[in-house]
Amino acid sequence: MEAAESGRPGPAASSSSSSSSSSPPAAAEGEKTGPAAMRRSDRDGGADGRNVGFVLVHAGAGYHSESKAKEYKQVCKKACQKAIEKLQTGALAVDVVAAALIELEDSPFTNAGMGSNLNLSGDIECDASTMDGKSLNFGAVGALRGIKNPILVANKLLSEAQKGKLSAGRIPPCFLVGEGAHKWAVDHGIVPCPPDIMTTKFSLSAFRKNRRKLELAEKVETEMIQTKKRREVTENTNVTASLDTVGAVVVDHEGNVAAAVSSGGLAMKHPGRVGQAAVYGCGCWAENAGGHNVYSTAVSTSGCGEHLVRTMLARECSVALQSEDAHQALLETMQKKFVRSPFLACEDSVLGGVIVLRCCRCSMDSESALNTPALLVEFLWSHTTESMCVGYMSTQDGKAKVNTHISRLPPGAVAGQSLAIEGGVCRLRTSVN
Amino acid sequence: MEAAESGRPGPAASSSSSSSSSSPPAAAEGEKTGPAAMRRSDRDGGADGRNVGFVLVHAGAGYHSESKAKEYKQVCKKACQKAIEKLQTGALAVDVVAAALIELEDSPFTNAGMGSNLNLSGDIECDASTMDGKSLNFGAVGALRGIKNPILVANKLLSEAQKGKLSAGRIPPCFLVGEGAHKWAVDHGIVPCPPDIMTTKFSLSAFRKNRRKLELAEKVETEMIQTKKRREVTENTNVTASLDTVGAVVVDHEGNVAAAVSSGGLAMKHPGRVGQAAVYGCGCWAENAGGHNVYSTAVSTSGCGEHLVRTMLARECSVALQSEDAHQALLETMQKKFVRSPFLACEDSVLGGVIVLRCCRCSMDSESALNTPALLVEFLWSHTTESMCVGYMSTQDGKAKVNTHISRLPPGAVAGQSLAIEGGVCRLRTSVN
Repeated sequence: MEAAESGRPGPAASSSSSSSSSSPPAAAEGEKTGPAAMRRSDRDGGADGRNVGFVLVHAGAGYHSESKAKEYKQVCKKACQKAIEKLQTGALAVDVVAAALIELEDSPFTNAGMGSNLNLSGDIECDASTMDGKSLNFGAVGALRGIKNPILVANKLLSEAQKGKLSAGRIPPCFLVGEGAHKWAVDHGIVPCPPDIMTTKFSLSAFRKNRRKLELAEKVETEMIQTKKRREVTENTNVTASLDTVGAVVVDHEGNVAAAVSSGGLAMKHPGRVGQAAVYGCGCWAENAGGHNVYSTAVSTSGCGEHLVRTMLARECSVALQSEDAHQALLETMQKKFVRSPFLACEDSVLGGVIVLRCCRCSMDSESALNTPALLVEFLWSHTTESMCVGYMSTQDGKAKVNTHISRLPPGAVAGQSLAIEGGVCRLRTSVN
Repeated sequence: MEAAESGRPGPAASSSSSSSSSSPPAAAEGEKTGPAAMRRSDRDGGADGRNVGFVLVHAGAGYHSESKAKEYKQVCKKACQKAIEKLQTGALAVDVVAAALIELEDSPFTNAGMGSNLNLSGDIECDASTMDGKSLNFGAVGALRGIKNPILVANKLLSEAQKGKLSAGRIPPCFLVGEGAHKWAVDHGIVPCPPDIMTTKFSLSAFRKNRRKLELAEKVETEMIQTKKRREVTENTNVTASLDTVGAVVVDHEGNVAAAVSSGGLAMKHPGRVGQAAVYGCGCWAENAGGHNVYSTAVSTSGCGEHLVRTMLARECSVALQSEDAHQALLETMQKKFVRSPFLACEDSVLGGVIVLRCCRCSMDSESALNTPALLVEFLWSHTTESMCVGYMSTQDGKAKVNTHISRLPPGAVAGQSLAIEGGVCRLRTSVN
């Protein structure tokens, strides 16, 4: 794998682009997903007869402190390893992506499943969705309480819908919310989880701190109204932004792609608020090649849900990735359709991140007469938040060789206005073309 | 107004196109939205100094029996009159569209607000959303109980978000569901409504009938599993499809567009199920001209929520309407992006309908030297369902002159595979260019 050979992508590979700049940033050659990068990756062709595949995960676009970097990377590593195990046994992308998400949700460090942000009432309400590039089916849950792994419900909705109509010709649902979603999950064999188990010491302490900030902010606001003083925004009274939604994109041995996303939502959100992780086209997207699509594409997003909904970022990235240069296409999409989106013209700070992959069939041995079939996988991540934690792995990597990385905006770049973009490429030897 | 002058669009104006045909259907000349139609509409320019505007509403794509045609048309008429009253007082499109929706929701004949379909548990849960083409803001509620006018909550979410951040820097929500949405609505001054008031005699009797069908279907299914007989689909045991979601699109005197949609969802749906009416890009879309957009466009959809979500039909129509010929653009979108959509490849029947409008600035007197500023409004509806009930009106029409119409598929056309498309055009004299 390209990025593995050239070492973990370090901060030097981060390319920044201010929101007013239109020129593409220079990326370290080793990370570039252009033709120059292809040649080196040929050397990775080490198929051992097992099923091939590739996974890229994220543990959120937000702010990852150096002190917790180890834990975030560890979570991504476990998720990648789980996905690779499944891929090697021949599992399809849509189930592999769910397996990766379960690991990410189970970590108390991420804002998904266990340890999710608490809402204004001190409850955990989760959003999650998944899309299968093969069937183009989609499953989503919003504002779901008392289920440890929301992704399991989204995956189950997707697979149940694939069975066709319900009794009496009823159309199966693809999107369930709240109590109804909880009931459906339990009726379909998913074990409920007492809410206090999902709340961690850390999420509870963050909630208490945020509640104090909120009380203070509202007191100050009331005083300002009474004294008719102009409101001054003081950053340190703001609710701590925990945007660490998790997600994954996968390609399996058949070349199918799938994507998934899961989130506890914004800290101190209003109960019932649904973010991008549950909204079609906004939280994740997956579409196999076919028809007008040369590439199979899969995307998962993270960040401020309202910004990601209103820009439909997952689908926009997927559409853009059909153009020739994936790096350039993602960069332009993040600039024009996100940071400078007319749909967010009133926002001074646009916060989000994406992981994307695209793949197409190719030959393993581009320079020889042999025509060994292979899958060419290009993968990228980009974010406007301070940092984004990612991990990636292919079935051709040894078990310990998971690439994990906290991508950060370059020094001086302003979160919400600038962006970082990085990525790699790998070739997977397949048995069939 | 064009369509008004040539009489109510009758069945002869319906143009059908089988899902395999790619040639555009011939529409009655009077209904055509091409340049030939423009000339006649010039005669409509009768501004009386009040603010101008135009509204197009629908009371659902589904099946409208002849016996209830009068009631459906009456509902559309009232909604149009309400909208026109508001437009004349200078109200902006986003508020006018909400006013029209309230009339549509309040009717016991439509599947929105009062008299909505009951879900599997016998409860009413509503979805609604609205989009403002000027600010590009969006507000939506899903699976909302105990609020007579869900559109009011969606509109309030939109207008609250326009005020900027909440205390302590929190981002205001654009999409709320379930209990949380109800609580937010009540906290924001919207009066709750006891659920039994929203249930009508008709919706309750339909629920009881559907419940019996469901019990029968499940009994038959169990027997078939036991006797290993092949399942035969018998249409008459199917749950009655009430798809009569309501919606409206509006252009105001400033040329701003807005769209809204409201639905009780599919009959006997699972509690918590959310359909297209609450999903961004799927239920409604509105975008003022500007940037790359020559036209302002507004779209509202109706039909099977899952089909409309997975094809993102509202946004697809809006994008297509930027091309030169609106009629052709809508026809192709309905054929390629809906009936034959790769996202619905497994569906044998694709059920839905849309109302669309687009407008641009023009001159009132195209053939004279005078350059009286005007708004050129093209409006269309299209559906794959048996029928669709629409109404439309401009501020230049007399109070009694509302055009209402039940559009039907032509004889022999198959619902879910064929489509009808009709429309008109009008010119509104404005005071400013």
